[in-house]
Amino acid sequence: MEHEGKNNMNGMEMEKGKRELGSRKGVELTMRVLALILTMAAATVLGVAKQTKVVSIKLIPTLPPLDITTTAKASYLSAFVYNISVNAIACGYTAISIAILMISRGRRSKKLLMVVLLGDLVMVALLFSGTGAASAIGLMGLHGNKHVMWKKVCGVFGKFCHRAAPSLPLTLLAAVVFMFLVVLDAIKLP
Amino acid sequence: MEHEGKNNMNGMEMEKGKRELGSRKGVELTMRVLALILTMAAATVLGVAKQTKVVSIKLIPTLPPLDITTTAKASYLSAFVYNISVNAIACGYTAISIAILMISRGRRSKKLLMVVLLGDLVMVALLFSGTGAASAIGLMGLHGNKHVMWKKVCGVFGKFCHRAAPSLPLTLLAAVVFMFLVVLDAIKLP
Repeated sequence: MEHEGKNNMNGMEMEKGKRELGSRKGVELTMRVLALILTMAAATVLGVAKQTKVVSIKLIPTLPPLDITTTAKASYLSAFVYNISVNAIACGYTAISIAILMISRGRRSKKLLMVVLLGDLVMVALLFSGTGAASAIGLMGLHGNKHVMWKKVCGVFGKFCHRAAPSLPLTLLAAVVFMFLVVLDAIKLP
Repeated sequence: MEHEGKNNMNGMEMEKGKRELGSRKGVELTMRVLALILTMAAATVLGVAKQTKVVSIKLIPTLPPLDITTTAKASYLSAFVYNISVNAIACGYTAISIAILMISRGRRSKKLLMVVLLGDLVMVALLFSGTGAASAIGLMGLHGNKHVMWKKVCGVFGKFCHRAAPSLPLTLLAAVVFMFLVVLDAIKLP
């Protein structure tokens, strides 16, 4: 009788363990798919942001201003290029990590779990540094700075700024999702 | 006899476990002290960087240039203020985490270990975003950008740029140390 009871207990515990493993795998998969979408969207939004405008510039004070067609796009600013690059890297990495999760069906060795944790941690670092760089230059474009005499850009290229701006919260959100994944990885580490 | 052998084995394993715990605590303490020094140095270096110079500016083309005394300091650029702030926060946090480590003599509950892991992870996020912001503005000051017509600053305030520059690698190094601590925390998590 007692023996049977013990078996039931073990069975129930195994059942509970399986369910826990399944739900954690579901949470992880959802988070990784979310990170994939966020990083892809952030890179695309910033990559396609562009505005062309005729700007009149006074080169010689005594002569009338010159009308010049100028274009604003992300590739003209290295901080934006950096932001697009880290989002692209994070997007590629996420696709690979999802493949690993699917192939291993959630049962990964300690070594593989550690590699995934390190990968997720590197993505936290890259995405937060990308957010920092793009925000610093974005704010400078929005407000300018009289101390270094850098004029604001969004006064002239308002559309470009509007189109590019959403990539910042998207990158920040993706970075926070990766922080969550690092914690999830740490909990799973045997 | 066999019983005695088992006791010896257990004793030796316990000894090994103690030594491992001790060495991990030593590594962690060293890393936290290193992070304390790096973040303190980074905040100080950038905070005290300053240069005052007489700059001649041509306000009205037909009149001779005007000599103006101008000062370059970190507080004039929000990205630098942000970098100093995150280093100060990380420095304060590190002092607290060292105190926790000393008081608990390395034997921390699962909950406390998780809190410390989360804390270290937030420092990774803050320090990398601080590095990104300050590097983006620093590079802009070094090279300028003809597309947005922002002139370089270091051509005029070379000394300020030289004095401020070391804070970037210091902040980056501190951020990497915190990444290492996150991995150490994850390994310790029972």
